[in-house]
Parts: sequence; structure tokens; C-alpha cells
Amino acid sequence: IPNVGAVNFFCNYEESRGNYLVDVDNNRMLDVYTQISSIPIGYNHPALLKLMANPNHLSTLVNRPALGILPPENFPDKLTESLLSVSPSGMTRVQTMACGSCSNENAYKAMFIWYRNKERGHNMPSDEDVSTCMINKAPGCPDLSILSFNGGFHGRTMGCLATTHSKAIHKLDVPSFDWPMAPFPRLQYPLEEFTRENAQEEARCLEETEDVIVKWRQKGNPVAGIVIEPIQAEGGDNHASPDFFKGLRNIARKHGCAFHVDEVQTGGGATGKYWAHEHWGMDDPADIVSFSKKLLTGGYYHKDELQADKPYRIFNTWMGDPSKNLLLAEVLNVIRRENLLEEVTRSGKALLNGLYDLQAQYPGILSRARGQGTFCAIDICDDATRNSILLKARDKGVLLGGCGDRSIRFRPALIFKEYHVHIFLNIFNDVLAEHK
Amino acid sequence: IPNVGAVNFFCNYEESRGNYLVDVDNNRMLDVYTQISSIPIGYNHPALLKLMANPNHLSTLVNRPALGILPPENFPDKLTESLLSVSPSGMTRVQTMACGSCSNENAYKAMFIWYRNKERGHNMPSDEDVSTCMINKAPGCPDLSILSFNGGFHGRTMGCLATTHSKAIHKLDVPSFDWPMAPFPRLQYPLEEFTRENAQEEARCLEETEDVIVKWRQKGNPVAGIVIEPIQAEGGDNHASPDFFKGLRNIARKHGCAFHVDEVQTGGGATGKYWAHEHWGMDDPADIVSFSKKLLTGGYYHKDELQADKPYRIFNTWMGDPSKNLLLAEVLNVIRRENLLEEVTRSGKALLNGLYDLQAQYPGILSRARGQGTFCAIDICDDATRNSILLKARDKGVLLGGCGDRSIRFRPALIFKEYHVHIFLNIFNDVLAEHK
Repeated sequence: IPNVGAVNFFCNYEESRGNYLVDVDNNRMLDVYTQISSIPIGYNHPALLKLMANPNHLSTLVNRPALGILPPENFPDKLTESLLSVSPSGMTRVQTMACGSCSNENAYKAMFIWYRNKERGHNMPSDEDVSTCMINKAPGCPDLSILSFNGGFHGRTMGCLATTHSKAIHKLDVPSFDWPMAPFPRLQYPLEEFTRENAQEEARCLEETEDVIVKWRQKGNPVAGIVIEPIQAEGGDNHASPDFFKGLRNIARKHGCAFHVDEVQTGGGATGKYWAHEHWGMDDPADIVSFSKKLLTGGYYHKDELQADKPYRIFNTWMGDPSKNLLLAEVLNVIRRENLLEEVTRSGKALLNGLYDLQAQYPGILSRARGQGTFCAIDICDDATRNSILLKARDKGVLLGGCGDRSIRFRPALIFKEYHVHIFLNIFNDVLAEHK
Repeated sequence: IPNVGAVNFFCNYEESRGNYLVDVDNNRMLDVYTQISSIPIGYNHPALLKLMANPNHLSTLVNRPALGILPPENFPDKLTESLLSVSPSGMTRVQTMACGSCSNENAYKAMFIWYRNKERGHNMPSDEDVSTCMINKAPGCPDLSILSFNGGFHGRTMGCLATTHSKAIHKLDVPSFDWPMAPFPRLQYPLEEFTRENAQEEARCLEETEDVIVKWRQKGNPVAGIVIEPIQAEGGDNHASPDFFKGLRNIARKHGCAFHVDEVQTGGGATGKYWAHEHWGMDDPADIVSFSKKLLTGGYYHKDELQADKPYRIFNTWMGDPSKNLLLAEVLNVIRRENLLEEVTRSGKALLNGLYDLQAQYPGILSRARGQGTFCAIDICDDATRNSILLKARDKGVLLGGCGDRSIRFRPALIFKEYHVHIFLNIFNDVLAEHK
């Protein structure tokens, strides 16, 4: 496997303006995976290099604060310029965290705190709450659950892992919570050709979700929050329609559960919008939206009522890293200046159309091409062929990643242009021809 | 509360060579808390500023890799220069993580994986293991526990939080695991004046620990690992003797539990050694040692047998941050070049002796002065007085932090010299005189 240090990844910013082909002999690679979807505007973007070379920022790089007690003087302004400038609809608050797992762990805690205060009707814990929580017992540590979906991935720390259901290797041998799992729709692609079948499948999943919520409440472990990805990524790039998510949002509201949209992988522009949930067209899409990866810092947005009622309830030493926030502010400037969301929409169309063509050409190997923006995937006939294709593509200078049982996911940076798409499709075609 | 941006914290490196007093009018403060013990060699150390100004490092700052799949070419060398140059006894492996909580979460997972493979006698999970883990059920998600101690703090994500027992506000309303808690010795200080009483208390705690391990095994939720801090920090700076830890290590070995020493707060030099557990004088002090804060990156060291048997079992997108590792390597150079561990030992003696003197002078306010190196603490008569003292000290230019119910903890950087100690003691004396 090539190394960040050893390889000049293609999709360096400067290179993206050039027009040469992938040159494996010189260790140049076209990166369509970007460190698990976490390099937003390519390697070594000059705007970021310039930013980090600015001596005014040295202090931020060497003095990492405990943000929860001593935020830098201008930190609220910095958040306004960066994260809060792309807040999801209905959300004016953000909490930074160091990584995606910590973001989801703390989002779950915020939902539990909110739910218990709602149950109490006030935010004054009883003496019994206080004493029992110290020994991990109810009511202080209540029997409450987070509902998640089959195939979902929300991280690997122990709270997150209890909501992750994508691969056994993630979960095996680790104790878990008795939390409910509902079915995620298994749709047929292209979506527009199977609207009736897909609507039926989504209705079935919504119905089962509601059944599970009732069942868990009846057994004394109510669902405080529902967590879902707008596109299940690690679990195989599984899509669902805006109607499905609208239905789910209504179910959450009806049953008094918080609704948490996990945009750790989908957020940051790859679907052609900052947040994949924007494609649902809702004013009130969620109570909590978590992020990481392309945002360069972890964290979550939330509605006012999900703010913990006392300090030190959502807290840790670092709570993020202002140096990452500095980079993010510049990344957002670049996205705006270079109209990268429009570029992504354009490149994404070219990529998906190219995948449709290849799928028609290699029906024995490829199926279920799907995507939104450049956030695309395709299924391979079996796991062994998938892995062979990944290796051959690598040897020809294209870095790809798998997901699910036998999918390949495409996760280029936002500077991935149409001509990159064509370079990629040509190489992918060569690889497939060898497998035919 | 003063801001990192607004205040020139005293214990800037350059200032530490000067000799002036705290100058509140110019917003200079003597920081004896250092962002919850996480600034190792003071603010703006010239070696770190020089490092970050070096254009060779720009690429590391702007291209954060997914370390688990594409580590930079020289990353093993970089680890050898930094983290592995201060490995605890018996440990040659290290896993970096982004923060302290993620470090402990993944250390727990490593212990669970190790324990289950030991139970199986091999590392081949059964079909039932694989299928049940996907729905959070045993045997795939086994009933296994981590034993922790009353007053301990190991982080706030949900696995960590199940082992944290310091303050109710951390745990309230968050579901938890049925994991056992054993008593941590409640010693009398100065330790050398109460050796007999303290030895009795420690024997009692060891006996109860063993009882708890047996009890949890009998109820079908065996203890896979024991986690403990060498000095309970957040919980009130509670010390125990090397004999206690040796006894505990033997209990872990006898009952087949992994032994995890959490050095997130104690590690990095403040006790006068890189690791507080070095004061125990053991060749085989632990199976896992976790760290963060002063190490600037999270992570854990472990013995060979605690290495997960397959890739992707201990994994996440970033798994740390090479830019923090870069800073750490230079911090370790500075510690060696400037003999900072010796300095800490010297300053620590002056600090503790000064606290003993003040305690004799203000017996109605102060008690239980204790410490190792500059990792010191003292108890205040009550919580309200403690908080008033913290505020008054702040107004006089000294930044301190609390811990436990009514303790003040001292957590200066490693460049805190004897003359800083005297500046601090003079101001602390003034504050106490106002409360007499």
C-alpha cells in the first residue's frame, strides 16, 4: 500500500489544474478515496499551505487549549466564520470534538440528558438519581436506548459501536448495550426506475421502525434518540429517498425521540451540498447533526433544546482543536471561491453516467451503480473480484476503497473535476477488461 | 475566566527564564493548571515555534492521513523517536489515538479481544459469535466487564464513563454497563507518617477488589481488565503506595485479568518520571498504559499479547495525528536537553514543602497536602472556600484548578522552576490570609 510520504497523490491542488495522466512510475496516484473521505480540497492546497506558513498562527499550533474552560478570546468569531457559516437548517449551536466517534458519543449523551429532563418535567435530578449513577445503576444511569439501522456505521467507541451494524469485525468480542436495530431500506437502482418497489420497501422499514420503538418502550428501555446516516457509507453506500427520511423524522417526533443525522462521512460537500440531508428539502431535518472527516474537526450541531442544562455535562479536556478550525475556515473559503459544490455536482454526474456505461458493458461484474454528487459506489459480483479490482486499480495508479460486502466506494476530494473522472473511468475500464 | 488569546500566560518559555513577578495589570498570569495539565513545556516554547515554522512540516499540517491504512512513509521512525523512546517497561508497541477517551475506549477493546481469545483457546470466532455480535447479543458481544475504582476518572465516552466514578455530573442520565467498582484506598497524609494505618487500608481495598472479581465472575460477567490511575487525579489526587499497586498487579495476574494503567493525567513527566508507575519500581508494571494530555496525542502502549489478532479490530479514520507526534518528539528533546524531569523533582519538593508550611500556618483551611514531583494537591476546608480561593488566586494572577470534592490540584508545566514555586506560594499565602 502506498504511503502518504512516498507518493505524490494526484489531486494535489496544483496538479488538478494540469492535464497529465496518472504516472505510476513517478509514484503519482489518482486518489479517489482520500484518506477515507477526509481530505476536502486535495493534498497541499496552496491556500492551506499559505495559511499554515503564516507566523500569526504559530501560537494556535503549539498551544492547544482546553476549549471547555479556556477558549481563545476570538473562538466564537472563529466558529461563526467556519462551522456556523454552514449550519444545517434550524441549528444555531455547534459543539466541537476531536473525532467522529467522540462526536457521536457526545451527541448520544446530549440526547439522553434531553430525554431524561423531558421525562422528569424539570432538570433537577433526585437524590436517588445522583447516588445510583455513581455505581452505574438506574435510575441515575437509566435504561434508555439509541435506535440505529442494520448496515449503519457510527464509530467504534463503545456507545457508537452499539449503534454500528455494518461488519462483524468491528463489533466482535466487545460488550454492547441492549439497543434496538431497525431495517434500513434495501433499494433497487437506479432509484428512478424502481420508485414503486422502493417506496414499498421504505414503507416496510418505517413500519418496522415504529414497531421496534414501541417494543423497546414496552420492555422498559425506551428509545431516546434515533441515529441514521443520510447514505449508509461503510455499510455499502445504501441510499434512501427523501420521503423515507421525512417519514422517519415524523416517527421520531411522534414518539418523542431525538433525531440524529450522522453526517461524518456524507457531510462537507461530496454530495453536491454541504450536508447530504439538504437533499431531503426539509426545514427541520434533525435535532442533532454530527460531522468529522472533511470538516477536519469532529463535532455536532444541535437545536437549542439539546443543549445540556449544566456545564461539565458535555465536556472533555480538549473538546476539539482550534488549529483544525483554522484549516476548516480556509477550506470553506476555497469551496465558495472556486464554486466547488457546483463542480462536485458536475463531476458527480459524469462519474455516475460513466459507471452506468461500464455497468452496461460489464454486466457480469458490475451492478447497482448509485450516487449523489461524487459520493458514488458500484457493486462487484463478489468479494474476491472486488479485492482483485482494488489491487489492480492501485497498480495502475488509482486509489479506491471498498465498503459493504462487495461494493467499491468513490470518495474523491471536492476538486475532483470532470477530466479526473475521465482519467479514472479509462483506468477502471482497463482493469475491468482484464477481469472480463 | 481569562482567555488563551487575551492573556499572556506566565510560564511562557522565555518568561520562565526571567525573574519578574506576576503582573495582573498586563494580563500576565502564572498558570499552575495548564489547560487541564496538557501544556508540557509552557506556552510558546521557542523550540516548538521553530519546529512549526519549518516549511518542511507544512505538508504534515495540511494533509492529515488515515494512519491505519496509509501511514506516512517514515511514521514508524517517527514513533521510535517520540513515543517509543519513552515506552514503559515491558512494552514495545504503541497505538496512537486522537484523545484520552478514545485511548481508553480502544485499550478496553484490546483487553476484551485478548480475553475472549484466551477463553476460546484460539482466535477463530464461531458462527454464533459472528451472527450475534451484529445484533449486540452474547456470545458475540460478550458479558465481560472492566473493573474500576471508586473515585477513578477514565473519560466520558460511554465505555470510559462506565469506569469513571468521580462526580455525578459526569455520569447522570447516561446509560451504563453493569461493571464492578472496587474501593480505592483512602490514605492519610503525609504518607510516611501513617504507614501502618495506610497499609491496613490498602490491604482492605485489595481484599475487596479480589472479592468483587470473584463475585462478577460468578454472576457471569467476568472481569477482563482492571483499569486504575497511579494517582487518582480528577477524583481528588488520591495516592496509593507501590505495595498497593504491586498487590493489584498480582491479583490481576492471578485472576487472568489484563492490567491497564491509565496515565492520561499522570504521564509525561509531572511526577518527576515520564510515567508515574515508574515509582512502583516494577519490571512488569502493566499490560496496557494509556496516555494523552502532556503527550499531545492520545494513545496506549501495550504488551505484544494485547495486539489485536486481525487488522481493522482496533481502527478508526484518523487514529491520531502525525502533526501532534511531530510536536511531541520536540517536547521530548527539550525535556532531555533541559533535564526537566530533574527540575520537576526539585520544584516539586519545594512546592510540597511550601504546602506543608502553609498547612501548618492555616490548619483551619488546609489539610492533606500531598504530591509527587509537581503533581501536588491540598484539601480546603469546604467546597465554598475552595471556590473562593480559586477565584481570588485568579484575580491575583494565578490560575489553579480544583479536583475531588474540595481539593486544589497543581498542574504546572514541566518548566515550572523553584522561583515559580515561590511566586506561587507568596500569592497563595496572601489569598489564604484573606480567608483566615
